[in-house]
Amino acid sequence: MSRSVKLYYDLMSQPSRALYIFLSTNKIPFDRCPIALRKMQHKTDEYRRQVNRYGKVPCIVDGSFRLAESVAIYRYLCREFPTDGHWYPSDTVRQARVDEYLSWQHLNLRADVSLYFFHVWLNPLLGKEPDAGKTERLRRRLDGVLNFFDQELLSAGSGQAFLAGDRISIADLSAACEIEQAKIAGYDPCEGRPALASWLTAVRERTNPYYDEAHKYVYRLSPDHIVTPVVAEDE
Amino acid sequence: MSRSVKLYYDLMSQPSRALYIFLSTNKIPFDRCPIALRKMQHKTDEYRRQVNRYGKVPCIVDGSFRLAESVAIYRYLCREFPTDGHWYPSDTVRQARVDEYLSWQHLNLRADVSLYFFHVWLNPLLGKEPDAGKTERLRRRLDGVLNFFDQELLSAGSGQAFLAGDRISIADLSAACEIEQAKIAGYDPCEGRPALASWLTAVRERTNPYYDEAHKYVYRLSPDHIVTPVVAEDE
Repeated sequence: MSRSVKLYYDLMSQPSRALYIFLSTNKIPFDRCPIALRKMQHKTDEYRRQVNRYGKVPCIVDGSFRLAESVAIYRYLCREFPTDGHWYPSDTVRQARVDEYLSWQHLNLRADVSLYFFHVWLNPLLGKEPDAGKTERLRRRLDGVLNFFDQELLSAGSGQAFLAGDRISIADLSAACEIEQAKIAGYDPCEGRPALASWLTAVRERTNPYYDEAHKYVYRLSPDHIVTPVVAEDE
Repeated sequence: MSRSVKLYYDLMSQPSRALYIFLSTNKIPFDRCPIALRKMQHKTDEYRRQVNRYGKVPCIVDGSFRLAESVAIYRYLCREFPTDGHWYPSDTVRQARVDEYLSWQHLNLRADVSLYFFHVWLNPLLGKEPDAGKTERLRRRLDGVLNFFDQELLSAGSGQAFLAGDRISIADLSAACEIEQAKIAGYDPCEGRPALASWLTAVRERTNPYYDEAHKYVYRLSPDHIVTPVVAEDE
């Protein structure tokens, strides 16, 4: 029996989707253990005690070893399972670029997308109407970080197709899943950003059918003015 | 002439201090390039164009290679320069624990310390009085994350002295420098947290005299009710 890991995830979570796609694309055997964020299943004592003390998704369990944080998990999987080298390049400069992006992302692109998503989409579901001034401030921050991504990280380079070279890496996959989340809140990240739009298409094409599979709820929940692929219903 | 890197840093920045201590402790030759955050030197076009497009500190330049984000820089330096193996363990489980902590830190311990520091200490310097309700909310968040650090990451383990085993790693160094920042805002992270207090002492002792050198402004700026070491003035 081949070695497999358990993946605890929710497809509404950006890093959960990215890890789901990474595992699937690399044919790493994994057991699906869905955790419903909307039911707060990630905050129960049992989940914290038995799966992830940090009380978050995604998380993997490999034998008796439990590991949280998608960035740590990618690196662990690249050491422990056969994966194509482009995902986490051994070349020192490219590896450093991947690490640099993934470290920067937390308090910048991820924070700005999440704050917008929570304020504009999630709060109303919880009965809190978004404040117009705050929405505008958060939108400007999101505009700024996506413009930087489009113009500095994608366009200003040496004509590379992806963030750390001419092949896709975990930096691209992680970034794409963060950026897709904005669509649910009615924000089109591709509008006026041609480099970002063609890069996002390339990430999707490189990882399909798993990309669409992981993004089925994103596509379904995005309002009509956001163009998303039509994916066959599987349930 | 031995290879050296340029370090762009400000000792008021937590990851700048951590990297300064890391370079010094590991005897990696580096040129000091101070960048004054209070003068916004990290936001100038020149700095962004010639040093760090992200407009932040710390950052290193190694030959023609520029790298931002302390977490990426540690890993790069461990590949490129001789460093003791305990800083970033090659053992797969310990390395994963270091990665897990450093990834989690950004949006949790680092975010909570920084938000408190900005609201309580920096805003008043900029003429904005802190809001009492917000101060209380931020303090409760900081209490929560430091309690988790003390009880789950330090105490609940198998009696390990450091975050990823019995020897210090970049996770400990990075965490210690984040936690020290709270002292400037009059928050004592050690009060009521014996595991955290003795771990913080161990990190300092393991990396002195560089730890105290890097924290001289933290010690000087902390209010009297926070106990900090007395360090000889060097300027």
